[in-house]
Formats: sequence, structure tokens, C-alpha cells
Amino acid sequence: MGSHPAGRPLAELAAHVGGTLRGDGSLLIRGVGGLAEAGPGELSFYGNPRYRDALLVTRAAAVLVPSGEPPLRTDLAVVQVEDPHLAFARISALFHPAETAPPGVSPSARVHPQARVHPDATVMAFATVEAGAEVGAGTLLSPGVFVGRGARVGAHSVLHPNVTVREGCLVGDRVVIHASAVVGADGFGFAFDPGVGAHVKVPQAGIVRVEDDVEIGACTCIDRATTGETVIGRGTKIDNLVQVAHNVRVGPHSLLCAQAGISGSAELGAGVILAGQVGVVGHIRIGDGARVVAQSGVVHDVPAGETLAGSPAIDHRAWLKLSAALPRLGELLREVRALRARVAALEGSEESEENR
Amino acid sequence: MGSHPAGRPLAELAAHVGGTLRGDGSLLIRGVGGLAEAGPGELSFYGNPRYRDALLVTRAAAVLVPSGEPPLRTDLAVVQVEDPHLAFARISALFHPAETAPPGVSPSARVHPQARVHPDATVMAFATVEAGAEVGAGTLLSPGVFVGRGARVGAHSVLHPNVTVREGCLVGDRVVIHASAVVGADGFGFAFDPGVGAHVKVPQAGIVRVEDDVEIGACTCIDRATTGETVIGRGTKIDNLVQVAHNVRVGPHSLLCAQAGISGSAELGAGVILAGQVGVVGHIRIGDGARVVAQSGVVHDVPAGETLAGSPAIDHRAWLKLSAALPRLGELLREVRALRARVAALEGSEESEENR
Amino acid sequence: MGSHPAGRPLAELAAHVGGTLRGDGSLLIRGVGGLAEAGPGELSFYGNPRYRDALLVTRAAAVLVPSGEPPLRTDLAVVQVEDPHLAFARISALFHPAETAPPGVSPSARVHPQARVHPDATVMAFATVEAGAEVGAGTLLSPGVFVGRGARVGAHSVLHPNVTVREGCLVGDRVVIHASAVVGADGFGFAFDPGVGAHVKVPQAGIVRVEDDVEIGACTCIDRATTGETVIGRGTKIDNLVQVAHNVRVGPHSLLCAQAGISGSAELGAGVILAGQVGVVGHIRIGDGARVVAQSGVVHDVPAGETLAGSPAIDHRAWLKLSAALPRLGELLREVRALRARVAALEGSEESEENR
Repeated sequence: MGSHPAGRPLAELAAHVGGTLRGDGSLLIRGVGGLAEAGPGELSFYGNPRYRDALLVTRAAAVLVPSGEPPLRTDLAVVQVEDPHLAFARISALFHPAETAPPGVSPSARVHPQARVHPDATVMAFATVEAGAEVGAGTLLSPGVFVGRGARVGAHSVLHPNVTVREGCLVGDRVVIHASAVVGADGFGFAFDPGVGAHVKVPQAGIVRVEDDVEIGACTCIDRATTGETVIGRGTKIDNLVQVAHNVRVGPHSLLCAQAGISGSAELGAGVILAGQVGVVGHIRIGDGARVVAQSGVVHDVPAGETLAGSPAIDHRAWLKLSAALPRLGELLREVRALRARVAALEGSEESEENR
Repeated sequence: MGSHPAGRPLAELAAHVGGTLRGDGSLLIRGVGGLAEAGPGELSFYGNPRYRDALLVTRAAAVLVPSGEPPLRTDLAVVQVEDPHLAFARISALFHPAETAPPGVSPSARVHPQARVHPDATVMAFATVEAGAEVGAGTLLSPGVFVGRGARVGAHSVLHPNVTVREGCLVGDRVVIHASAVVGADGFGFAFDPGVGAHVKVPQAGIVRVEDDVEIGACTCIDRATTGETVIGRGTKIDNLVQVAHNVRVGPHSLLCAQAGISGSAELGAGVILAGQVGVVGHIRIGDGARVVAQSGVVHDVPAGETLAGSPAIDHRAWLKLSAALPRLGELLREVRALRARVAALEGSEESEENR
Repeated sequence: MGSHPAGRPLAELAAHVGGTLRGDGSLLIRGVGGLAEAGPGELSFYGNPRYRDALLVTRAAAVLVPSGEPPLRTDLAVVQVEDPHLAFARISALFHPAETAPPGVSPSARVHPQARVHPDATVMAFATVEAGAEVGAGTLLSPGVFVGRGARVGAHSVLHPNVTVREGCLVGDRVVIHASAVVGADGFGFAFDPGVGAHVKVPQAGIVRVEDDVEIGACTCIDRATTGETVIGRGTKIDNLVQVAHNVRVGPHSLLCAQAGISGSAELGAGVILAGQVGVVGHIRIGDGARVVAQSGVVHDVPAGETLAGSPAIDHRAWLKLSAALPRLGELLREVRALRARVAALEGSEESEENR
């Protein structure tokens, strides 16, 4: 996929990412690929030393490398850049322009007469847009998408198949929501009534606000607020199967990896990174730029810039020491038992001393 | 959302929850909100001391507070109740009556001629009801909902968009199932056949029975039994992205928080609470009223009323001590090394003693 | 469900699984069930000693038992087999033949004129097949299924309601994909651009290849590769709510249990077993036949045949010892404090010795 019959001269691509070219600039690049997959006429990138061997054998015609990287192969054109991964993203985008669907509403879609769908939007078969909802210019609603009463989806956004955006929720511009994701389901709010011995539902009357340039993964759930808003900040990217509970506020440009879960009313700052399967308890605050290692459980406020690990989560360096020490616990138990015996022996002879 | 043009007198609301009013009962309340969001003419609640500061600055006109709470602000009407959260739930319900859809089957829905849909039920566009299935009075099937052959959904239930209820499964009255949830997918049952070196599927021929007043979260999966039934007991509430495996039985009025997972044939009693990301192994029993802390892994039977934490899960108090002690493990290793040296020294001089 | 009016003679069923019959071979078996559910005229199985009591009281007419199992009940017909669970799977399949839907495309489905759907395939209402896509013979696309541009689904596969298969992805023969699962959503790939202070999307231009005889659980997400392929090997079975990231390669006949997550570019060998809620970091390799205990986090390569546990995961036996030792950590701290005091006392009297 993404190959380009004509191809683009390597020099042009190097210039596009402000890189320094070492090799034949007239080389025609027809596509991009990982070091293992890329073939003749394709460009790849080398950012992580763990892939040094792959670099040595790649069939790629040219490779993006970090500035100052010593040449590993003389037979390979290289483009030196500060961040090969970022440069690869930019060049790959040239070979994979965003797909555009023909605008218009499918006769098999269901758009309520009181909904406002921009003439340049695309609404595919079996998509539903309810009364009072709005869909912006250039936005794509795939088959099975549901946009509830009074919900608003901005411009140039893409909602993949079977996405649900419940009533009143707000989705910004250039937002991508992957298949089967759910925006605006009821928060998990119940109060136990001892009188009747049952849980009473707390109406979830708030909404979800998804700001511009957010991406939301497949089967990810972002619950509507009890009152007010659950907010996903501008440019934040969310992976698959992530849970974001009611009244959570996630700052801009954060990354939430797969299967992470954030409990009610927690606040994440800007540029926060939660690795996979991380859990965050409710009503706490995680500061700007904080990072949490995979499978950790955050139970207290986290200052800006900190890195945490473990469940309950502690400072990452402390956790690394702890993880290294843990396997020696058994040995430690034996050790102490031995010491106890030796000390008892010493005490015994002590006494005999006294009785001399 | 949920504001109420006319408004209701505070005295009426106080009476509705049997609260004691301190302030002007004629005050007109037009809506409800959290302490941070509520504005003039709105009612809020104060249940958790961590929100004391929010109470001091809230713009709400009136606040539900615990009985015996010393007045923190004289300028604020308060209603003293036993459980402010429960009272808030009740009053919020007055301002947010359940939405009702006009009954009838959309011409764009697919209802099999041998299905029985109550005339007061609502079946929206792109919903499917298969042969022999039943849908009760006042029940809403949203777009993209699938109700399989011979499945039964009771009265006054709400199935949100893209929910799947597979063949033969039973869903009770007043049940809420959120978007993209799946009831009755095949349980994960395979037997390895060494002869052919492949996994052989064990037919999953049972069903799921969801009792009355259950709520099931978005993207939650409840698998059908191998034979017999997987059961979700009356009034149990399940959050998003929860896994309930084949032949699990969950008692009434339990709470399963987001991303919890219950393995095959496990049994949960009444009023059990599993916090977020908890795992439960198969074939065990968790007694009535037991609670499990977030991210814990339950690997043994749990007596009624216990609270567990950790993976593998142990008594919660023991786990708290352990979590406190753990970070001191490194220090302990150094300590023991030092003691060993000192004891060796003592033993050395002991010997010299002997040789005197 | 799955009962069989006429019934089949027990002798015939015993022969079907190559078992040794003890009892009346002419007994007519009308269905199968677990020991607890099975009634008169039904066959059950006994494989796990924990169900010994259930065997003693089962109302089943006949039971599959392990060869050499001493007879526990004389009133019960038994069939001795090597693997009762496997034999049960085979016999249950006789009573629960795979359902077949009438072939053809529903007038309410959307099949692009440039798609190729085999005449013996079934495409139900509200299913979408895009341009250039192929659907093989005997394959079922349930309501709400989406098969994207140029995607290919093989023969005799079953896609349950609201499944999404994105553009270009390849699904083999006899594959089962459960409701709301997503094959081929974009991998989670972004490069941070410090210049603009935002994450730049790395185009996810690869595909997912699902080989023959794979089963994929409900709400499970398998992301497309950045370039090249994400691969699920032949005969591998995946449970619900599992995350498989971009460029992951899973070998044949592996088992991935519910809520497990595999990070980008990780490789799993053949016959690997990940238990529930396991996490695997990116760019590592797990060898053939390795097993990982529930909730573990795998952070390094794993040799073939190993069993791991814990987070970070270590050898399972070591982890069991560690788990047993951990609760004694508090006691250990007190112990060492006491020893320190006693050693200090000894050292004190030592000195007085010297000063004699």
C-alpha cells in the first residue's frame, strides 16, 4: 500500500524534512517502509539502536538516520535528520494522503430533518444523525455511526464504523474516532439506598467535550459527566480500549495507551503519558509532563514531570531498585534466620563469660 | 442540560428527600450541578470533605449537606440529609426525567415477521430483531442494535446504539445496556487436540440471563454459558469494558467497575464490589458484600464481607502494611549485610577469647 | 438449547470419541451439559477433581471420565477417554451443528458494485461491503458488519454483528469474529514535533492478516501495521477485549485470554498462552509454548517453554516463592530491628571485656 508509481526524488524528500543528504539525490523514492519490509525504491528510517542489524541488511534504497550517526553502509543513501521517526512520519504522509470520500448523504443514512449536516460532509449508509445535531465540512461519518440529539461534530473529522457519539456531546475539528468507540455513555454513578436495598442511578446529565486534533482508539469509552463536562484536551491521542470516566479532564497533547483506565473526576495535565493498562484512581491530579509506566496504579496526586511505576505507583527509580531487590527476599529471610542463631550463640557464651 | 425554566421551590425538594431545611424554602431551584459547576438557582451537594474548599466558593444557591454538618457558609441555603449523594440522585432525577421515544418500528429497522415487538416499544433505524425474539413494552432499541433469534428483552429497557444481544439470551425489565456492549458472545472454550495439534472449539450452547434493573456499560462483554446460563443478578451495575466469562454467576446488587474481568464459572455473591481493573480467576466463589481493591487479582475463594487487595489478593489491612514496608526492602538488605559483618567480628573476638 | 428429540445411542457417541463404554450402550442421549445442569437423557463430563462432588450428585445419564478413573457411581453409565474435555467438545458438536444462514445479499445490505461476494455467502441487513472487497463462499456477514475497501474475508467465516474489518485487511477461512471486534484500526503511532509542540500522526499504511481457523473475541482490537502486516497465526484463539498493537506477530495455535494487551512489534511464537489481563511490552519476543500467568507484565524476551508470572514478570516458580515470602516482610523488619539491638548489646559488653 502507499506506493507511488512515479516516485519522488530523494533530494526533494530530504529538503521536505530539512535533512542532510548523503548519496544520490536523483534517486526516485516510490514508497516508505520499516527496515525489514522496505524494498528497492523505498525509504526507511533508523531511530533505535536495537534495529542496527536490520539496518545492516535492509533492502531499502535510502534511510533516515540521526544526525551524526556514523555511516554503517556505504551502499545506502542516507538522510541525516534530528528525529528520524518524525521525519519518517512527514515523508510517509506524502505517500499516504488522507483519503477523501465524495461528499453527500447516502440515501441509506438517517439524517433527522432538524439536524444540520454541512454539504461537504459525507454521511454513509446506516449512519444516524439525530435532531439538532451538527456535522461540519469535510467530516466523514462511516456506516453504523450514531450522532445523538444536539451533538456536534466539527470539520474534517473522521468517525469510523459503528462509533457512537451520544446526545449533546461536542467533538472538535480534525478529530479521528476509531471503530466501535463510545463517546458520552452514562458515567458509572449510583447511590446505594439502604431503605430499598438497591443502587439508585445518579442521572448523568453532563456531556463529553473532545477538543480539536484528538484521536480516540477503537472500543475506547469516554463517559459523559454527571453534571458539567468530561474533557479531552486538544491534540491528545488515546489508544484502544481505554476507559475515561465521568468528569475526568485530560489536558492537551497527552498520550493514553491501550487499556489504561482513568477514574471519575481525575485531572491530567498537559503532555501526560499513561502507558498500557495503567489505572488512575478518582479525584486526583497528575501534573504536566508526568509519565506512568505500564500496569501501574496511581493513587495520589503526581507532581509535574515525575515518572511513576508500580501498583501502588511510586517514584520510578525507587521502583526499579525495589524490583531488583524483591527476588532476593527469600534469601534475606534465610539470612536473618542464620544471623539470629549466631547472635543467640554469642549471647550464650556471653553469659558463660559473666559466670566465670 | 437539565435546567428547568420554572424551577421548584427548595422547600419542596427538601421535603422530597426528607431533609431539614436551613434557609429560604421559597427559593426557586432550576437545576442541579457539582459544587464547581452549579450556578445561581442551582442545587449542589457536599458529601466528601476533600471538597470543603469547593463548598466555600460554590456559586450554588443551595447545597445538600450531611446531618450535623456545622454550617460553613451563612449565605447559603442548606438541606441536611443523611446521605447527600443519595438525596442528590433523587432530586437530580426530578430535573432529568428519563427520555421517552415515540413508540413504533422504524421503516428502516429489520423486524422478523416471527418476532414479537410490543406496540409500545421503539425500534429505531438499522436495528435488527430476529425470528422468535421478543421486545417488551416501552423498551428502546437504538440504531444498530441486534437482538438475535429467540432472545428476549423485557419492558422499559434501553439498548443504546450498536448493542448486540445474541440468540437465546434473556434481558429483564428496566435494564440499560450501553453502546457497543455485547451480551451472549461465545465463551472462550477450546480443547487442545494433540492428534491434529489444534484447538477444538467447545460449542457454547448456553445463554446469558440478565435480570431486572441491571445496567451494563459500554463495550462490556458478557459471554454465553457453555451449557446452562451466565447470570447477572438483579440490580447489579456493570461499568465499561468489563469482561464476564461463560458460566459466571454474579449475585444481585453488585458493582463491577471498569475493566474488571471475571473468569469462567466464578461466582460472586450479593453486593460484591470489584474496583477497576480487578481480575478474578475461574471456578472460585466471592462471598456476599466482599470488596476487592483496584488492580487486584483474586485467586482463592473470598469469605463474605472481606476486603482484599494486591495480586495475588490478600487481606486489605495486611496489604496496606506490606505496601508500606516494601519501599524499605533495599534499606533492609544493606542493614542485614552490616549486621552480618558485625556478628562475624564478634564471633572473631569470641574465638580469640577462647584462645586466651 | 441443543437438545435432540430422537437422541443418539451412547455406544455410538462412545465410538465417535474412541472411548471405552461402561454401561448400557443403547441408552439414548438427547443432549449434553455440565455436571450441575445435565439432566436425564443427557451426557456430561468429569475432567477436574474439584468437581468430584458435582459428579456424585449429577442427574446426567452418562459421563465422560478420564481412563483409569475409579468408578465413583455404579448407577451411572461412563465413557472412559483420554481427555474428557476434548471428547465433550466433539460430542457436543454433534448436538450443536454450526448454524447456516440462507445465502444471498439482503436488499437492506450495501454491497459496492465493485465488490465480489460469493453467491453462497450471506450478507445480512445493514452490512457494508466496500469497493474491491471480497467475501468467500459460505461466509456470514451479520447486521452492522463493515468490510472496507479491498479487504478480503475467506470462506466459511462468521462475522458477528457490528464487526469492523478496515480497508485492505485479510481474513482467512473458517475465521470467527465476535460482535464489535475491530480488525485494522490505525496503530497508535505518533511522533512529537517540538517545533509546533504537537504529536504528528505516523500514517498507518499496513494491514492486518488473520490466518485460517482464528477466533477473535468481542470488542477485541487488532491494529493494522504502520507498514507491512500485523499477523494472527493460523488456529490462534483470542478472547474478548484483547489489544493487539501494530506490527505484532502472533504465531499459530496461541491463546490470548481476555483483556490481555500486546504492544507494538512484539512477536509471539506458536502455542503461546497469555492469561487474562497480561501485558506485553513492545519489540520483544515470546518463544514457542511459553505461558504467562494472569495480570503479569512481560518486559523482556521469553525463551520457548518458560512460564512467567508477576509484573515485571519473572520465572513462575521464583514468583510463587516470592509471593509466599512477601507477607512476612513486616515481621522481617521487626526481626532485624531486634537483632540490631542485641548485636549492639554484645558489642558493648565486648568493649567492657577489652577494658578489663
